[in-house]
Amino acid sequence: MSGLRAVFLDIDGVLIVAGQAVPGAARAVRALKERGLVVRFVTNNTRDSRQTLAARLRALDIPAEPDELVSAALATAAYLRQRGLTRCYILARGEVLTEFADLLAPAEEATGVVIGDAAEDFTYENLNRAFRALLRGAHFVAMHRNRYWQTPAGLALDAGAFVRALEYASGRRATVIGKPSPAFFRQALRSAGCPPEAALMVGDDIRTDIQAAQRLGLRTALVQTGKFRPTDLALGPQPDLVLPSVANLPDRLAAL
Amino acid sequence: MSGLRAVFLDIDGVLIVAGQAVPGAARAVRALKERGLVVRFVTNNTRDSRQTLAARLRALDIPAEPDELVSAALATAAYLRQRGLTRCYILARGEVLTEFADLLAPAEEATGVVIGDAAEDFTYENLNRAFRALLRGAHFVAMHRNRYWQTPAGLALDAGAFVRALEYASGRRATVIGKPSPAFFRQALRSAGCPPEAALMVGDDIRTDIQAAQRLGLRTALVQTGKFRPTDLALGPQPDLVLPSVANLPDRLAAL
Repeated sequence: MSGLRAVFLDIDGVLIVAGQAVPGAARAVRALKERGLVVRFVTNNTRDSRQTLAARLRALDIPAEPDELVSAALATAAYLRQRGLTRCYILARGEVLTEFADLLAPAEEATGVVIGDAAEDFTYENLNRAFRALLRGAHFVAMHRNRYWQTPAGLALDAGAFVRALEYASGRRATVIGKPSPAFFRQALRSAGCPPEAALMVGDDIRTDIQAAQRLGLRTALVQTGKFRPTDLALGPQPDLVLPSVANLPDRLAAL
Repeated sequence: MSGLRAVFLDIDGVLIVAGQAVPGAARAVRALKERGLVVRFVTNNTRDSRQTLAARLRALDIPAEPDELVSAALATAAYLRQRGLTRCYILARGEVLTEFADLLAPAEEATGVVIGDAAEDFTYENLNRAFRALLRGAHFVAMHRNRYWQTPAGLALDAGAFVRALEYASGRRATVIGKPSPAFFRQALRSAGCPPEAALMVGDDIRTDIQAAQRLGLRTALVQTGKFRPTDLALGPQPDLVLPSVANLPDRLAAL
């Protein structure tokens, strides 16, 4: 583990599968922390606050603090502040809006349009507000462009569908912040205070986790849980480690 | 006008510009009818019934009967019936639904999903109903794929944006019925009871009117009103006639 200082753990599919902790995940996280590694929990989640995400992990006995969470919402808010986009129309709802408390503005005055997970707030009226702001030249930012997500009532449209609708109608392209965007990994590196080569990204998605992190120079570990399929290894990107699950990570760090 | 039996007149930009009748349009339509030509008013409108569309033309002194109207909604309903898709979830609203009275079904039982101009009925819940029906394998039909339209409150998203959202999330492609789709012109030909070579399409859009009609073998006349721009004539398609306005059409038919 030469020079390794930080480990970025994807949550869904790596630490949690189908609402349950992956066996051995809690022990693995503790082992990483005991070795003095900076741990960051990274997720494209744009619904929950970092407090809620940390509490969810702790309920599964995984030690996690809000400051150790890096969500697509957090990365988006950081991106907006860096660019001085402090007057934004934000299509999202619920507690995630706390990440954007200092950035909110009515659509009519907004210099940025930000699409997150608005769910029932994706109304025709709200989408038209976003559309008209885009036509006026507002920056166009998407927290991610996921296609759909699983709800208790079945699959439901995710933010990406509405990003696509607005792109089509406005002729504009959104800047996407969540994984696999470089902006997301840069935010995680900033949070961990380390350069790319000192960080290991652990994920179950060969594209949005592994390939995207490699492009920025991070080291990578692919776990064979979550959405992993054996055919993924033939897709091109070669992770530094391939592990049956995150539980095997502490023992395999020496191979890095 | 050798062999000419029918004239298809686009409404917006040809007969009506900015809510007003194009000067001489009413007289031109009368002249066409007096010569025994079958006249059809063709439009991508999917909001109004044929009765309303005909009444709007008559209010401008243009002689029009409901049976002379061919709208994208009418063409869509005809398409669905021809394919036996008689149980459809139709995202549209208002009086245009009268075209689909015999084709409606709840989303949960639908074998077809049809996107029109639902406006405020484009809710997250309704879009998810359509999305889930598509995932179950329902046919996917779009009345058109326009990007936006002008409302009293400003530009607003049109059906195409929501078609694009559903395509992106579902991985399916919609069959589009309105102009420039061949299905639309076939419906107009069926309504007029004549083969393509006996029909003249009159439009202001070099792509969706002229090029699309030529592909099906219709003759074409481009009018220099509405959305016409001089550069259109360099885009490739060569109309049989180029006219300052529809008012010049009766006098120029001899050139066909």
